Amino acid sequence: MRPVSIIGVGQTPVGEHWQKSLRELAVEAVQAALADAGVERPDALFAGNMLSGGLCEQENLATLVADFSGFPGIEALKIEAACASGGAVVRAAHMVVASGAHDLVVAVGVEKMTDLGGDGVTSGLATAADADYEAAHGITFTALNALLMRLYMERYGYARRDFSPFVITAHENGVHNPQAMFREAIDEKDFLDSPMVAEPISILDSSPVCDGAAAVVLCPTEKARSFTERPVQILASATATDTIGLGPRKDPLWFESAYLSAQRVYQQAGVSPKDINFFELHDAFTIVSALSLEACGFAERGQGVRFAQECNIHRNGKLPISTQGGLKARGHPVGASGTYQILEVVDQLRGRAGEAQLGNVRIGMAQSIGGMASVAVTHLLGVEV
Amino acid sequence: MRPVSIIGVGQTPVGEHWQKSLRELAVEAVQAALADAGVERPDALFAGNMLSGGLCEQENLATLVADFSGFPGIEALKIEAACASGGAVVRAAHMVVASGAHDLVVAVGVEKMTDLGGDGVTSGLATAADADYEAAHGITFTALNALLMRLYMERYGYARRDFSPFVITAHENGVHNPQAMFREAIDEKDFLDSPMVAEPISILDSSPVCDGAAAVVLCPTEKARSFTERPVQILASATATDTIGLGPRKDPLWFESAYLSAQRVYQQAGVSPKDINFFELHDAFTIVSALSLEACGFAERGQGVRFAQECNIHRNGKLPISTQGGLKARGHPVGASGTYQILEVVDQLRGRAGEAQLGNVRIGMAQSIGGMASVAVTHLLGVEV
Repeated sequence: MRPVSIIGVGQTPVGEHWQKSLRELAVEAVQAALADAGVERPDALFAGNMLSGGLCEQENLATLVADFSGFPGIEALKIEAACASGGAVVRAAHMVVASGAHDLVVAVGVEKMTDLGGDGVTSGLATAADADYEAAHGITFTALNALLMRLYMERYGYARRDFSPFVITAHENGVHNPQAMFREAIDEKDFLDSPMVAEPISILDSSPVCDGAAAVVLCPTEKARSFTERPVQILASATATDTIGLGPRKDPLWFESAYLSAQRVYQQAGVSPKDINFFELHDAFTIVSALSLEACGFAERGQGVRFAQECNIHRNGKLPISTQGGLKARGHPVGASGTYQILEVVDQLRGRAGEAQLGNVRIGMAQSIGGMASVAVTHLLGVEV
Repeated sequence: MRPVSIIGVGQTPVGEHWQKSLRELAVEAVQAALADAGVERPDALFAGNMLSGGLCEQENLATLVADFSGFPGIEALKIEAACASGGAVVRAAHMVVASGAHDLVVAVGVEKMTDLGGDGVTSGLATAADADYEAAHGITFTALNALLMRLYMERYGYARRDFSPFVITAHENGVHNPQAMFREAIDEKDFLDSPMVAEPISILDSSPVCDGAAAVVLCPTEKARSFTERPVQILASATATDTIGLGPRKDPLWFESAYLSAQRVYQQAGVSPKDINFFELHDAFTIVSALSLEACGFAERGQGVRFAQECNIHRNGKLPISTQGGLKARGHPVGASGTYQILEVVDQLRGRAGEAQLGNVRIGMAQSIGGMASVAVTHLLGVEV
């Protein structure tokens, strides 16, 4: 595979965009990314999205976005991998540029979740589960994650309050991100007082329903410096799947897809977890953060929560996570979140993260998870020296 | 790009599958294709599909199919490009194998349209149009195509009966395909007596609502002969887009996306229309067949219908089309049709088309169209000698 780099990024703020449509969000991010890269016209556009058909009655989404971005004619395809769609679209674009089929590809993740209100969104999100054997029984993703969190607490002897560091850290970091949905710090009392959604998951264990779009521009590494002084190389990318349902798994507390995709990128890049400077993980729920840290080799089994309690995840810790708020505080427009993660890793590596900037970072990891970790897409990015 | 070949194909019959679910159709095609290729476990699975979210309440589709095919763990992504999704998934798989990221990739197109009945399907198909500026006004795809057909008849002086050769030929060819939905020949009287859907489009101008799945297995050409004595090389593949809506186009009777994607594959393979031995085109409506022939350079503007009337499209003609029934008679399970087309080209080139077999064919073309030709995916396939 020929090496590929990211030469530009663009995003909309994350929030409830009552004045902007699905297409407007996507086009805004695409145009910002192309402007950042200094690219007038891409060769292809890939759109990562989960719910446009169900919530916005719009398929053929990539064609729409290519058209309204001003590029009818170019290749355009939509990539779907549930809540990992935003990572998957960059993974797909990476392979396409590596193949030589195109040189300049823009990958945009976009989701518009707020127009339908709560029930529509809950049903829409449930399409990431097994429609016949899980969703048909009425179980939601919050309920499924509540089962995992309860089991984790019982097996490893944690209380609900032990999960608070994930949320406090995410909100603390979100304060410094002008694009984040929630820019206010919270404390442990806020977390403990938070209303229950599906016990033991409270509102503050959960990422919000919201809208947003993020885009990145990819090109062959050998051409990257003709566009920007600060390209960021895709050191590795990988997708892995697991059973779509929780039922058939030997151990529901093991995220095999997160493990496999992390192992694949470590192997591709010749690195190990200790080489990773920071990690944009899929903190859709606090339990997902804990299990992701374990699956990716940053914490032993049952120690993901302890890893957070020991301050390792803080911006000055051993492995900063959710450095610009994460899914929890930046927000989780599902099909866009994975692209936001990659954009944030790029910003950190380019030294452009503003008040959220970490010191001395060389390799960042982003992992986007779909369904009950039935699919995971992981990227390793690095500065070129 | 490293050369890529198709080493195995598999399909379900096309029809109303009341006893089989979306996943069962997909798994059946995947397993048949892998068995044909002699591949035990693919490295990745890509699923082409348009409507699983809207009609079957199932996203995360590629993960589901990978799981139920027996391969949890592998990379799996869904590709959507409206009714061109079945072609797009092979285009994506082609680029992925060409990149070196994977050697053995199965691409499956699948659609289950019958469970919801007519209104649900009509609304679902309308998501390929511009949701805000076209579909919101209630116009359906049949109505949009009726506008084109009416304009074509008026501009070039054709009567409705002049379109009959497309339908008669498709049904004649479908008789020889055991997987086709309609296996009965029709004559001009049947066509003229066919009830109107949206004048001048009758039922027999239209492809049917149906279910089905088709899959192909791709690998690097240099390894293809270790799997099969009769690999078929992907000589070229390309996607192109146009405006999503009909409104902004200079001439609604010109399919720019079909033109661009055809030009791209001709250029990639160094061929011209006269080198193409047969053409699986997107005969969703008779007017689409006529405009596709013109856009791809087989007929002059306004001469697509005449080209058919002059018997060029028959199995013994200059350019056989819809050789196994096409979308009209084999059937049009939308997200699967493009994969069926490619499978049928492969079968013809391998000499495995049974009673539908053409004599002496070396290069076949397949073109899958989405929306009002807002996106087109074109493949050129050739036998290796």
